[in-house]
Amino acid sequence: MKKKLQNSPVGIFDSGIGGLTVLKEIRKVLPNEDLIYFGDTARVPYGIKSVATIQKYAIQDVNFLLKKDVKLIVVACNTVSSNAMDILRTKFKNIPFVDVLIPNALYASQITNNLKIGVIGTPATIGSGSYRKVLKRFNPKIKVFSKMTPLLVPLAEEGFLKGEITRLVLKNYLGGLINKNIDTLILGCTHYPLFEKEISKICGKKISIVNSALQTARTVKNILEDNDIENRKETFGNIKIYLSDIPVNFSKTVYKFLKLDLKNGIEKVDIEKY
Amino acid sequence: MKKKLQNSPVGIFDSGIGGLTVLKEIRKVLPNEDLIYFGDTARVPYGIKSVATIQKYAIQDVNFLLKKDVKLIVVACNTVSSNAMDILRTKFKNIPFVDVLIPNALYASQITNNLKIGVIGTPATIGSGSYRKVLKRFNPKIKVFSKMTPLLVPLAEEGFLKGEITRLVLKNYLGGLINKNIDTLILGCTHYPLFEKEISKICGKKISIVNSALQTARTVKNILEDNDIENRKETFGNIKIYLSDIPVNFSKTVYKFLKLDLKNGIEKVDIEKY
Repeated sequence: MKKKLQNSPVGIFDSGIGGLTVLKEIRKVLPNEDLIYFGDTARVPYGIKSVATIQKYAIQDVNFLLKKDVKLIVVACNTVSSNAMDILRTKFKNIPFVDVLIPNALYASQITNNLKIGVIGTPATIGSGSYRKVLKRFNPKIKVFSKMTPLLVPLAEEGFLKGEITRLVLKNYLGGLINKNIDTLILGCTHYPLFEKEISKICGKKISIVNSALQTARTVKNILEDNDIENRKETFGNIKIYLSDIPVNFSKTVYKFLKLDLKNGIEKVDIEKY
Repeated sequence: MKKKLQNSPVGIFDSGIGGLTVLKEIRKVLPNEDLIYFGDTARVPYGIKSVATIQKYAIQDVNFLLKKDVKLIVVACNTVSSNAMDILRTKFKNIPFVDVLIPNALYASQITNNLKIGVIGTPATIGSGSYRKVLKRFNPKIKVFSKMTPLLVPLAEEGFLKGEITRLVLKNYLGGLINKNIDTLILGCTHYPLFEKEISKICGKKISIVNSALQTARTVKNILEDNDIENRKETFGNIKIYLSDIPVNFSKTVYKFLKLDLKNGIEKVDIEKY
């Protein structure tokens, strides 16, 4: 049984391609693991939709990954991490989940000095109050300043990662947080690391930027090791990508953003059936 | 039979709330008609998705409206009008469809003097080449200059209808078209009339802005009259809105954008079942 689990793939899902920033870090930390990624590109974005719809979609995404015999599921989406973890953990008791919220919040709570933390995210992530709740649990003295930043996902998907428009939007969103004298800024969406350079320029050196991808990858590694189910093979694992819709320039976009060359191709899934 | 059709509602659908700009014009032109609107807010936007997915969603949207016994269906979405009309007309032979593309293109072809027409739209609308094909059919001498403007839908949904960011994005998108000396600009997306003031300022008085909503409403009126199936009652028709997801601030947003007060409430639909 353990042998079988060792050889099973790790599942990762997101509303679209943002979660590939997490896949990339998992690949670095656990190069031997086979990775199966599902991106719900037919229904992207999730972050502007209602909690009921987000939960319904998340359950379908997990059902799909379970059919692929994954040994652990990474919820590489802050919107789902903020609005659907209780329902997923209740409904699917036999599979470990790693969300992106807890690693992000834990790391931020450890590195802040002045206990003033900023969070940016989708309307559904910020609206849930999830980061505030978790950060306060780690340290009730932490002050959390949050801001909904819904234009960043479309900007990323259109390739506006720098330039005048992007800088203006970022300044518009971040100005209020910087004025609150935060020393730590959580990027509460897996798309946002794509803007990290521009965000760093606007925030200056006094603010540390926390990006969940690396922390999440480390959490996955710890869980696999603690349960003795990490893959022992000595070759690189396979990466397989499933999408509910295949956008015209998908491969080019992924390569441009993430320098990920998806050799095993991409397969389309009818997610509404799951 | 005709009596029954006279009393049946007119169906209207769009990927989200943009089509309400069309509903509003239909209401003005045909105040006695009962109107049923479906917005696929659970899967919005359509314009960045593949043709196969757009067609699948459009068929589900029509199936839903047919269950409501509509007498005519308005495809209040340029993305569907550009990518799925052939499949809808083949599959559903017994219902008349009015799309937003033909009325828009016909009107533009009639008002242009220098035969240089600009079109802005979603990636799926512009990528289909639909406006180019239809305009050339009306007059082969027309030169069509088109531009994908995918940030405008998220800007509209976030309420950025004016201000510095919106102006910059619009200037960035429109600059190339204005340089081509167009005298007519087609707003090839039902969201774009929300930016009409800003677009007019950037384009100046020499460029006429064509917005499909009014032309589409007139086409609906003509078809109902030609078939003698317009509603004869002397009171205002009912407006009923169905959505696949109910976003948190939906009613407020609709009122802010369109000054439409939705008295009969909004009902949620599981569109994946259709």
